[in-house]
Amino acid sequence: MTPTLSTTDPRTGVVADTGIAPTSDHAVDAIVEAAVGAAEQLEGFDRHWRADLLDAMAAALEERRQLLVDIAMAETGLGEPRLQAELTRTVYQLRLFGDAVREGGYLEAAIDHAGDTPMGAQPDVRRMLVPIGPVAVFGSSNFPFAFSVPGGDTAAAIAAGNPVIAKAHSAHPLTSQASFAALSAGADRVGAPAGTVSIVYGQAAGSRLVAHPGLSAVGFTGSLGAASRLQELIAQRERPIPFYGELQSINPMIVTSAALHARGADIAKGLALSVTGSGGQLCTKPGIVLLPRGAAADEFARALVDEMSSVEASALLNERVLTSFRESESELEAARGTTSLLGSSGAPASAGEGFFVEPRVLRVPAAEITEEHTVEAFGPLVVLVDYDTTAQLLGALDVVPDSLTISVHSEADEASQVAGILPRLTATAGRVVFDGFPTGVRVSWAQHHGGPWPATNSIHTSVGVTAIRRFLRPLAWQNAPEQLLPTELRDDYLGVPRRVDGVLHLPS
Amino acid sequence: MTPTLSTTDPRTGVVADTGIAPTSDHAVDAIVEAAVGAAEQLEGFDRHWRADLLDAMAAALEERRQLLVDIAMAETGLGEPRLQAELTRTVYQLRLFGDAVREGGYLEAAIDHAGDTPMGAQPDVRRMLVPIGPVAVFGSSNFPFAFSVPGGDTAAAIAAGNPVIAKAHSAHPLTSQASFAALSAGADRVGAPAGTVSIVYGQAAGSRLVAHPGLSAVGFTGSLGAASRLQELIAQRERPIPFYGELQSINPMIVTSAALHARGADIAKGLALSVTGSGGQLCTKPGIVLLPRGAAADEFARALVDEMSSVEASALLNERVLTSFRESESELEAARGTTSLLGSSGAPASAGEGFFVEPRVLRVPAAEITEEHTVEAFGPLVVLVDYDTTAQLLGALDVVPDSLTISVHSEADEASQVAGILPRLTATAGRVVFDGFPTGVRVSWAQHHGGPWPATNSIHTSVGVTAIRRFLRPLAWQNAPEQLLPTELRDDYLGVPRRVDGVLHLPS
Repeated sequence: MTPTLSTTDPRTGVVADTGIAPTSDHAVDAIVEAAVGAAEQLEGFDRHWRADLLDAMAAALEERRQLLVDIAMAETGLGEPRLQAELTRTVYQLRLFGDAVREGGYLEAAIDHAGDTPMGAQPDVRRMLVPIGPVAVFGSSNFPFAFSVPGGDTAAAIAAGNPVIAKAHSAHPLTSQASFAALSAGADRVGAPAGTVSIVYGQAAGSRLVAHPGLSAVGFTGSLGAASRLQELIAQRERPIPFYGELQSINPMIVTSAALHARGADIAKGLALSVTGSGGQLCTKPGIVLLPRGAAADEFARALVDEMSSVEASALLNERVLTSFRESESELEAARGTTSLLGSSGAPASAGEGFFVEPRVLRVPAAEITEEHTVEAFGPLVVLVDYDTTAQLLGALDVVPDSLTISVHSEADEASQVAGILPRLTATAGRVVFDGFPTGVRVSWAQHHGGPWPATNSIHTSVGVTAIRRFLRPLAWQNAPEQLLPTELRDDYLGVPRRVDGVLHLPS
Repeated sequence: MTPTLSTTDPRTGVVADTGIAPTSDHAVDAIVEAAVGAAEQLEGFDRHWRADLLDAMAAALEERRQLLVDIAMAETGLGEPRLQAELTRTVYQLRLFGDAVREGGYLEAAIDHAGDTPMGAQPDVRRMLVPIGPVAVFGSSNFPFAFSVPGGDTAAAIAAGNPVIAKAHSAHPLTSQASFAALSAGADRVGAPAGTVSIVYGQAAGSRLVAHPGLSAVGFTGSLGAASRLQELIAQRERPIPFYGELQSINPMIVTSAALHARGADIAKGLALSVTGSGGQLCTKPGIVLLPRGAAADEFARALVDEMSSVEASALLNERVLTSFRESESELEAARGTTSLLGSSGAPASAGEGFFVEPRVLRVPAAEITEEHTVEAFGPLVVLVDYDTTAQLLGALDVVPDSLTISVHSEADEASQVAGILPRLTATAGRVVFDGFPTGVRVSWAQHHGGPWPATNSIHTSVGVTAIRRFLRPLAWQNAPEQLLPTELRDDYLGVPRRVDGVLHLPS
């Protein structure tokens, strides 16, 4: 007998059996084959139906809201308000993607009529994006909803018209199961083909999934290490497939002298919330804060320590996250020139048996900063870095790995100085935040959650409407008879934005 | 002394020294570093300047037209009309991309204003695509202009705002050199920063280039083998970068019974041109043609053989292409069930010492088709496949590797049958051609030149305006002061299409 999966309450450390068996090889194969069949059948459903599918999934999640939140609390140790908000975000995301599907701009529909051109007579060519095929979704431990089974990758892949096969997260198998049940109920409600959404359990099943010839893309949110293991399996496939990984991020934040003087206390307060919210386990948590050395920085540090020391110990998501945090914490504390301002390495938190940790604040001069100081500590820890000059600030930034975000707190009269360093900042991140904090990623049309390696491994986003683009491929029709074209590419269809003979037209 | 590069006239087999030295490791490093510097400086030039840069490059190529064509003739053996047309296309492509840059839709500019949302109060977020960084361009042997130094990848990378480092093709180093001189003159004319375009020579330089930490993307057109070697080097990089490869393609073509009866002779004539044009050395050459078995197919085959036997022997591009063609030809001829209708394997062409080959027509029943029959023969060779039923047709298609294109010749009254198999066809290709031939790829807004593996290794196109997307990455600005935003994202700028609070607006 294969042992069934277990689940652990991070608040108590108590392990329980879930009764869920790992998915067998045979079952994984059958699931992917069903998804391949579903992909073909989904071609027969139109865009508006697919938007309804997303809405039905959203509604089914809403109907199970309290159950989902309760299960997720027990498996992740995250607080109820946070999980309620996350579920709201997840539901909103599905509906927003439904809106985008109805609007149809994501299809990038384009028509070039036949005609004489500077290149001579040319045929009619029409292009739009079509679904890529079955997509595997590997969610993260820290967002049991928004970046897991019912999360952004699933919403994007379904919006694009693809079946989704979710890999249940080992740290929240029951949340995964209950979320899948909701998606599945939503799919049934609108008559989606069998195989439109499915789920597999266990690491071996995940490996078999990404190796399966029928799979067409992988969405992943997690560690660089886990991503490398999957990437190796994908590299061994006969047919390569896109692997979109959202991986790690330090999220440096710069505070200028004027900002520090004008509103240091406010920034310290906001930073404390941003670093300790969700136990600091957010991929956009600011990990390094660069401050101009001096009395104001010292005062800022004291204020930050005050704020953070009043924050209760957080239960980290699971034992692996705890172990990894302890390791990073020790490495950072041992790195040359580092001073600890709050907490001490590996100190047992007062809260008892669970995976609790206390907030940490470390500090190091910019002149001393090396790779050792830029280890990602996934938890409530921040490193303050004191700089003397802009050159030293930029030198320190060069040491920090590229990130999902970079933030700058400055004052209006410093705009020209900020403009001077801005190209250096934009080169290192996917989102630049001004006078704010990078946590709390807005789900919207203009969002981009990505960034240069090692923040992600691609040039695409995993949040916001344009995340749909990852699971589409272009297709061109040349000289096609009207009735063989997709609706959106027929001459008389005007329901989506289209580029006709090079000119963009709005729907009418 | 490192030996200088040689060049061979495919029409005579005569080898000549070019006097061009392979680029040293040190020089490659200096070139990439200059490109990194240029990337930063290019941020200071606006979209309209960049369109002027593309126009200046186009003009500089036009000014050298006859010289470029003469050099390319001597290095590729391609005919003058073909090379004149290719250069026209190359110039047109640069100008079209300039138009696209002026229009600005490619930026995907989007603004979500701050405000209350179903997710609560949310910050201002703005997104657009920004240049990815220095791009290496590896051109193909068969398009010395349109897919080489001044070709589509270069035009796309420059349009996106990136410096380009071209790797000179070993089979046409002098054409590469002269094309680079034109691009460089164009760049100088508009005051482009040093390092905006550069070139390296020799295989070792190409390898060092893709391994260099300063490089941000690679565009490649060539063989699966050469692509694998580069991909391995890229896999060893610390920072992964996108590698866009356009690789190989069989381009199946289906002829229905009604089409065969209605216009078999015309299709045979068109096919002969499509298979033998440019010596059959086009990535979109139809390699396999599926016909309904019977007397009409026999007549079609005779007509095709008639047409093709009157075509003069073609000089293939270089000795490697010749060797590879000979190998593929022998394998295909030896494959079970194959009959040769025209020519014989490895027969020396009458034209003498050069790399000449005669056109070939082979034939095999669909019932016999295996992987052996689907080897790509890069040259004037086509395999006719006789099918009895639609099921047999689809079974044969399943054996053919996915391709850049698939073509269907049918009659109007067969639309419902074609519709029935269309999803099977669109799944296998990047472009579906109706009642025409896949060669002669239109350069336009709606074009897509790509396809599932092994036609390409990505979901992007290498022809047409959307090719620019490959060399851009999204960037988001959160709560940015107006003066720190790029022009195109400021509230009062209305010069590009933008999505504002989810609604697409045309420029005004």
